Amino acid sequence: MSRLLVRDLAQVASPAGSGTPLRGADLRRLESIEHAYVLCGDGAIEGVGRMRDLPALEGEVEEIDGSGLSAVPGLVDCHTHPCFAGDRVHEFSLRAGGASYEELHATGGGILSTVRATRAATAEELTAATLRHRGWMRAHGTTTFEGKSGYGLDRDTELVQLEAVRAAGGVPTWLGAHTVPPEFDGADAYLDFLLADVLPDAARLAEAADVFLEHGSFDAAQARRYLVACRSAGLALRLHGDQFSECGAIPLAVELGARSVDHLEATGPEGVAMLAASGVVGVLLPASALFLGRPMPPARALVDAGAAVALATDFNPGSAYCESLPLALSLACTQMRLSPEEALAAATVNAAHVLDRGDRCGRIRPGCRADIVLLDASDWRHLAYHFGGDVVHTVIEGGSVVFRRRA
Amino acid sequence: MSRLLVRDLAQVASPAGSGTPLRGADLRRLESIEHAYVLCGDGAIEGVGRMRDLPALEGEVEEIDGSGLSAVPGLVDCHTHPCFAGDRVHEFSLRAGGASYEELHATGGGILSTVRATRAATAEELTAATLRHRGWMRAHGTTTFEGKSGYGLDRDTELVQLEAVRAAGGVPTWLGAHTVPPEFDGADAYLDFLLADVLPDAARLAEAADVFLEHGSFDAAQARRYLVACRSAGLALRLHGDQFSECGAIPLAVELGARSVDHLEATGPEGVAMLAASGVVGVLLPASALFLGRPMPPARALVDAGAAVALATDFNPGSAYCESLPLALSLACTQMRLSPEEALAAATVNAAHVLDRGDRCGRIRPGCRADIVLLDASDWRHLAYHFGGDVVHTVIEGGSVVFRRRA
Ligand SMILES: [Zn+2]
Ligand SMILES: [Zn+2]
Repeated sequence: MSRLLVRDLAQVASPAGSGTPLRGADLRRLESIEHAYVLCGDGAIEGVGRMRDLPALEGEVEEIDGSGLSAVPGLVDCHTHPCFAGDRVHEFSLRAGGASYEELHATGGGILSTVRATRAATAEELTAATLRHRGWMRAHGTTTFEGKSGYGLDRDTELVQLEAVRAAGGVPTWLGAHTVPPEFDGADAYLDFLLADVLPDAARLAEAADVFLEHGSFDAAQARRYLVACRSAGLALRLHGDQFSECGAIPLAVELGARSVDHLEATGPEGVAMLAASGVVGVLLPASALFLGRPMPPARALVDAGAAVALATDFNPGSAYCESLPLALSLACTQMRLSPEEALAAATVNAAHVLDRGDRCGRIRPGCRADIVLLDASDWRHLAYHFGGDVVHTVIEGGSVVFRRRA
Repeated sequence: MSRLLVRDLAQVASPAGSGTPLRGADLRRLESIEHAYVLCGDGAIEGVGRMRDLPALEGEVEEIDGSGLSAVPGLVDCHTHPCFAGDRVHEFSLRAGGASYEELHATGGGILSTVRATRAATAEELTAATLRHRGWMRAHGTTTFEGKSGYGLDRDTELVQLEAVRAAGGVPTWLGAHTVPPEFDGADAYLDFLLADVLPDAARLAEAADVFLEHGSFDAAQARRYLVACRSAGLALRLHGDQFSECGAIPLAVELGARSVDHLEATGPEGVAMLAASGVVGVLLPASALFLGRPMPPARALVDAGAAVALATDFNPGSAYCESLPLALSLACTQMRLSPEEALAAATVNAAHVLDRGDRCGRIRPGCRADIVLLDASDWRHLAYHFGGDVVHTVIEGGSVVFRRRA
């Protein structure tokens, strides 16, 4: 495999510092180099610097002209639900007409309609859907993505979902505890089944476990039972928490040493303070809040309190049919008062930290994986500024070009 | 020029009815045909119907396979500011960090920073920028766009802007009264200059005149003076009104028989009622409201009261760096409680009405211009549902393919 040189870039921007996750003022410290090059070899970044410092290169080197472009690290989407069949466009239309989440659920919409469609699909169809969605993400600059199960809720389909995410190159998270399927009489009976019959194999396929902690789904005691068992089986822990109400997700996440609590639209000042004092990352999902017409999570308060935050799409057919991290960055800057620098760090190095890849993803730095997004603007902040625009020009993954906006 | 047949479309959706603008329940009445074809010839739509009714075609016919795709009319963006130099990404970053509109203005940001950059650009540069932005719009399904001047504020640059919009195929609107440039001592003195020295040539180049009616810009008396003179010179009338406060834009628009009042984020119940009882279209710009973190216009109230509404991007470097009408549709459905059908009619036939093209743009119907957007989904409502997604597959303008997502 030959080396790849991206030359004459107007700008290279990358989160500064070395550890993960970044917090407070460190979130705003970006390393920025003007008139720069990035050199990749063996799938990793070999060098980055100013053009005038570019060393003489021997051997075969493929070149990309970066004139007029800027470069940022490949984006990391640490929260997506990419493996499903069908869509929820009808539900979207009803909600636009004023139907509530509960009314939609009552009319046979909601998660369970996706569960029905997903169970009815073959493994090949689910893998193809996941690959298609991965292609969509790539076209928006995502080079590392997490993908959750949770639309099977039976043994076979949950495992097929995890395998599909793995086959598409994603980081699989087992979300068996997404909601209680109709064939079970209550959450406890369903958890009995999950932990006895699914966990052993899920633990083999997934890197983390996730639970939806909310009224009507799983309460804090049930979530604890599920997560403790998953942790014993070797899985890292994630939680969907504080989306509609505070049900104890943050205290539980801190107690169990979870990697993240995700959503936080309903988090109040005590939750902000507790999260900030912990090692748990708060994952912000503004596209989901916007899609459902919900308030934004208290991102500014979290960052100012010293919490580590990440930014993700929550891509899923029901509450965020949006695979675009650049759009999430735009929303972070316009709706949550994060600066572009904070939003970029949240969608790169901190998101990589949530996926236990903070040492090799999320920065443009020698030794990191050669995941780079070239932007069609000389100032990288157009990534957030160009709202809904086609700002992603070229995507490089592991040192290879995997997407170009115009072929 | 050979004919073009789009065959085997999963769905064709087009606003129903024949007149313009559409109001009330008519906004929700879409004609939808499943397993359909659209036939174009001589730049116009020759026929649309079910595949089983497709007549035998003689002569040369180019074919597009529409399998798995849906079709909607080419989108019409009736409010954009596409002719400018520079960008306002620095201002965007400052605002994300909490700076107010007034503070940004005070630091040399705001409209006048774009005016400086635009005045310093050559006519060729401004035409190239407008063409580039027009390409961006096309990639999001826009086949007809309006473009305003207003970043010159001197005779030559205003006229160059109007010519650039015209050269890019847009519908030019003279926005001489955008703001008062620093070389004039107040709005009245600037209006004296505009009406004496610019209007005669602007009236030759533009189809409409527009004014920014707001505290600190032009008041209602000044706007009336400008608009009355423009009307006498043969221009149709538009107003930027009720963006930050109600300053009399709706009464003035109704009095003068303007085509539209645009923005309306600050419009109260009396303004809603007055607009609904008039022939003036309310142009909704949700991307601008979101970009500035402002409240959304009262779209649901306007539609329910019987007002004719259109939907546009407000594409401009300061308050809406967003050329995507599909994103505006998503915002209409999630933030303004319009149904996908209402949003589509607002961004097609009603927007065409604002541009005096309602008879030939905005519907897929024999005799209309062959402007068609093929969507990468079998249900056209993905246009609004797929939030920030690459849903536009192919764009046909005047019977010719002008854009394909993947070449
Ligand atoms: Zn989720
Ligand atoms: Zn405007």
